[in-house]
Amino acid sequence: MSIAVIYGGTRENGNTEILTEHAIKGFQVERIYLKDFNILPIEDLRHDQEGFKEVHDNYNSIIKRLLTHDTIIFSTPIYWFGMTGQMKNFIDRWSQTFRDSKFPNFKNQMSSKSAFLIAVGGDNPQIKGLPLIQQFQYIFDFAGISFEGYVLGEGNKPGEILNDKKALHFANKLLND
Amino acid sequence: MSIAVIYGGTRENGNTEILTEHAIKGFQVERIYLKDFNILPIEDLRHDQEGFKEVHDNYNSIIKRLLTHDTIIFSTPIYWFGMTGQMKNFIDRWSQTFRDSKFPNFKNQMSSKSAFLIAVGGDNPQIKGLPLIQQFQYIFDFAGISFEGYVLGEGNKPGEILNDKKALHFANKLLND
Amino acid sequence: MSIAVIYGGTRENGNTEILTEHAIKGFQVERIYLKDFNILPIEDLRHDQEGFKEVHDNYNSIIKRLLTHDTIIFSTPIYWFGMTGQMKNFIDRWSQTFRDSKFPNFKNQMSSKSAFLIAVGGDNPQIKGLPLIQQFQYIFDFAGISFEGYVLGEGNKPGEILNDKKALHFANKLLND
Amino acid sequence: MSIAVIYGGTRENGNTEILTEHAIKGFQVERIYLKDFNILPIEDLRHDQEGFKEVHDNYNSIIKRLLTHDTIIFSTPIYWFGMTGQMKNFIDRWSQTFRDSKFPNFKNQMSSKSAFLIAVGGDNPQIKGLPLIQQFQYIFDFAGISFEGYVLGEGNKPGEILNDKKALHFANKLLND
Repeated sequence: MSIAVIYGGTRENGNTEILTEHAIKGFQVERIYLKDFNILPIEDLRHDQEGFKEVHDNYNSIIKRLLTHDTIIFSTPIYWFGMTGQMKNFIDRWSQTFRDSKFPNFKNQMSSKSAFLIAVGGDNPQIKGLPLIQQFQYIFDFAGISFEGYVLGEGNKPGEILNDKKALHFANKLLND
Repeated sequence: MSIAVIYGGTRENGNTEILTEHAIKGFQVERIYLKDFNILPIEDLRHDQEGFKEVHDNYNSIIKRLLTHDTIIFSTPIYWFGMTGQMKNFIDRWSQTFRDSKFPNFKNQMSSKSAFLIAVGGDNPQIKGLPLIQQFQYIFDFAGISFEGYVLGEGNKPGEILNDKKALHFANKLLND
Repeated sequence: MSIAVIYGGTRENGNTEILTEHAIKGFQVERIYLKDFNILPIEDLRHDQEGFKEVHDNYNSIIKRLLTHDTIIFSTPIYWFGMTGQMKNFIDRWSQTFRDSKFPNFKNQMSSKSAFLIAVGGDNPQIKGLPLIQQFQYIFDFAGISFEGYVLGEGNKPGEILNDKKALHFANKLLND
Repeated sequence: MSIAVIYGGTRENGNTEILTEHAIKGFQVERIYLKDFNILPIEDLRHDQEGFKEVHDNYNSIIKRLLTHDTIIFSTPIYWFGMTGQMKNFIDRWSQTFRDSKFPNFKNQMSSKSAFLIAVGGDNPQIKGLPLIQQFQYIFDFAGISFEGYVLGEGNKPGEILNDKKALHFANKLLND
């Protein structure tokens, strides 16, 4: 198992990161912090005669790193009951990559991958995080990715996730069982 | 009724815009196209000693325009089974505005507003758009906004929404009944 | 189009029935009122050596009527944010029919059918009825039935659905467009 | 903590029961197996001049037992992506009890209770069980019950839940942390 973690949060050592680090303890992983990169929103040119334009940002370099792993952990704080805008912009861009001649096997490559989701929110995430889980199921189905499991944790202030013993416990098991 | 439409799409005259224009026909509205503005992702500094930093982009000017209306229509194509990254970044920033001394009444002002959601997707939006509806319900609940109704339409290629007679029909009634 | 309506409600001329009658106006339909029949809960004997036992109630006769139609409208008041217990008992029993030698082609026959859902509730059904829609999508997917559309209406006291102009309007279009 | 388990399944020692027994190990609980009782579907007479009629079945006796506990565990196999018809009939009847002079404090009594949900299904319950979770959230919200947690387990054939180590593990923690 070769693992990439895509971090969608904007805080250093945030609750989502703490929970994720519990999950990946003992595994070798590549950590990708989206906040450290410039990722532009997609411009939907699927139906434009000239197709998508080349975009000058860090997105493609992240995709290249991602594609070297067989397992992806999407790790995002829950902002407004969804993934962060940065993570959403990152995923939105896949629509371009599916049509990008620089990534001719993108769809095939993605459809051989497994994914996990780790999300932490401050407002009843066990319930109000469920639409996010359902959205990711649709995302993974569409891309052919196998959705292997998720953890929802509760936390607001820095470090509060450490009080959510169940989430920590479950994170410890996420990749193991 | 004073209406602002927040357009989250990235295409001119896209399917979502066509459907929305059916809904607002005959009403005076202010149209805000997020794609025409620079809106940076939030940096979550809620728990930082110095709080949020001033951000130099177009976000505040859009909020000022929004606050002059009592009704907001969120109008977004469905990208990857959610709102566009741009619209998500726009909403994520509300967390900063809630704490911004330049907008001391933001929470009160928002909680007097009504909202509608119009979303168009190409992959079974009547079902796969439901997590998005549920997410917006949580968003509006949190902000105290009254969720007055939604339309989900189906369309992929430019203009295809015109084949979704039910969605057009329903859009025509959205603000009227 | 040959249509059966499965009524799950327990009231004569209830709001769900009124809304459904709007949807089927002008169509010839067979109405099946579950409340008029004795339908026992399933006893899960899938894994029992002797399999399911014959059940002496009205269930099989309803299934026979159902199978003569190509389109099924499931019409249920929303009780406790789901279909009525009677309708659930009716659907639960399908698990037996899938294994019943008296219905050797049940799965094939069901998988050629189209279905609609009409549901009326008193507590914000446009939002709180969505898990019911998602459940029916899974039910229809499992049985191979094509889910053609749904209407959620609001009403509590007898006749109140007549105030939900949008639902009535949408019901009128449900089978037509 | 005084606990009642409401078992909605129809099989002895089914997967849901096995998982639940892991959760309640070491606790004193009262087990109520709905399959052993006669519970008639509700007849919705809320708006009838004479109101609800007395029903001659075992429902009231179960409610009386339930009311003596402060914590209720709803434990149901997932049939057709929802709770069993029997459990639904049991919950549907609450609408009558809310108006039953024999239970004048039912609403108050219910609103002081805590609840857990344990559900086991054979078809991707971690995803396809989510609408059931959302439905129970609405049920508990309406009744004023505090929703303390849930476990979704996977199993089909007798005993298969024992292979879902994560669910067993999580069940062990459900009442403890």
